[in-house]
Amino acid sequence: MTCWARFRCNDGRTGFGVFDGTGLAPYEGDMFGAPRPAGALLERGAFALLSPCLPSRIIALWNNFHALAARLGKQAAAHVLWLTKPGTSVIGPDEPIRRPRSYAGKIAFEGELGIVIGRRCSEVSASDAGAAIFGYTCVNDVTAVDLLNENADFAQWCRSKSFDTFACLGPVIRTDLDWARARVTTKLDGIERQNYPLSEMIFPPAEIVSQLSYDMTLLPGDVIACGTSVGVGSIRDGSTVEVRIEGIGSLSNALAPG
Amino acid sequence: MTCWARFRCNDGRTGFGVFDGTGLAPYEGDMFGAPRPAGALLERGAFALLSPCLPSRIIALWNNFHALAARLGKQAAAHVLWLTKPGTSVIGPDEPIRRPRSYAGKIAFEGELGIVIGRRCSEVSASDAGAAIFGYTCVNDVTAVDLLNENADFAQWCRSKSFDTFACLGPVIRTDLDWARARVTTKLDGIERQNYPLSEMIFPPAEIVSQLSYDMTLLPGDVIACGTSVGVGSIRDGSTVEVRIEGIGSLSNALAPG
Repeated sequence: MTCWARFRCNDGRTGFGVFDGTGLAPYEGDMFGAPRPAGALLERGAFALLSPCLPSRIIALWNNFHALAARLGKQAAAHVLWLTKPGTSVIGPDEPIRRPRSYAGKIAFEGELGIVIGRRCSEVSASDAGAAIFGYTCVNDVTAVDLLNENADFAQWCRSKSFDTFACLGPVIRTDLDWARARVTTKLDGIERQNYPLSEMIFPPAEIVSQLSYDMTLLPGDVIACGTSVGVGSIRDGSTVEVRIEGIGSLSNALAPG
Repeated sequence: MTCWARFRCNDGRTGFGVFDGTGLAPYEGDMFGAPRPAGALLERGAFALLSPCLPSRIIALWNNFHALAARLGKQAAAHVLWLTKPGTSVIGPDEPIRRPRSYAGKIAFEGELGIVIGRRCSEVSASDAGAAIFGYTCVNDVTAVDLLNENADFAQWCRSKSFDTFACLGPVIRTDLDWARARVTTKLDGIERQNYPLSEMIFPPAEIVSQLSYDMTLLPGDVIACGTSVGVGSIRDGSTVEVRIEGIGSLSNALAPG
């Protein structure tokens, strides 16, 4: 089992390495290339975790869980349905989600599995797509819900999900997650709101990566948010959302007023 | 008048500089920072132009021209309506648009003005937004039209516009364009299909940049495609689309079979 993380030391230096749950072994080079061990173990308290990668975009799926599709009365699609969230929306563990100053409406959380791409790939089959997956992380896909259907002619999927701090990632990237046995649990101020099995995905990770690789070239560090299931809800200012996936860890972010 | 361009020399070396319509004066450093002249003028024939910048994303507007809104029977929106195209979709002058191998349907061109952002900015007023605009380029915003409404529950704006090669940019970035007096003309195999004045935009460039800066932090090199007007149409395999804006130049790209 390997968990990769990015970190900031107390002296401000940033880097990446392997996190064992308490200490962190720094590496140098390219996390997705051939990284080399570099320097002494950082002990607990000497660093904070950052978002585990810096994607130029997050590809976020809609309607990828049977239970939520049934709840919404939607058919399973023939192809993954997705939108993109920009790199500027990414934050890491314990960083605040910021309410946009221009928006006073409802803000929703969605606990999700995130796939982290490890290799540039285009038009790969589902059987080859596994080799392009570097690992998995937790995602809180945050949405300014009232904007989504504000305009009758154009569903604002990108705008409602692209605000700075609206893509929470972390705490680590687990390279060998047995996702089919894992569950996503999401707590709001300590109270469980989501608890669903990843085995219930309509399109599993290798199929998602394959289909998306026909839509665009995927790049190392790209994150794919696999969509959420039942139990999503809104976050009040000051509330904390915790997304947990056994084997990856727990990702907590509070909503700060704008 | 200054026109910035990126180039590839015949020996494979790439760079950026100031293009005078025939020759190119190379610069070094950051195009959006404090670039410095570097080396001898490259003469015509010694280089090819590349896409003039490498945005991590293109923010593409929908329904931003009165004439097209009237044609479609749509109201002007209260806020810019947009989606994002990824950096992987960008090509430059004379590079082929490639038909996705997975898609046999209609592919449409849209000739547009592109705004190139020069400074990181967030929550800027329309009166301050002009200072964040580095310049302007031509855009052909290519769309796999049949995918857009393929799924009844989810309009696939991102997917239909994100394929590799579906964002044609160039030939240069003009820093001091008098956009309000300029027109966009689009020719398909030499026959004019679009010819519309930019003065007819619903939201002009400074207002667009201001509004988007409240939706996300904008970064140097980001490109905003201002939306198109009447006259869009489909491109047959082998056909060439030329988007021309007086003062910027002409951007030509042919659709190659997949």
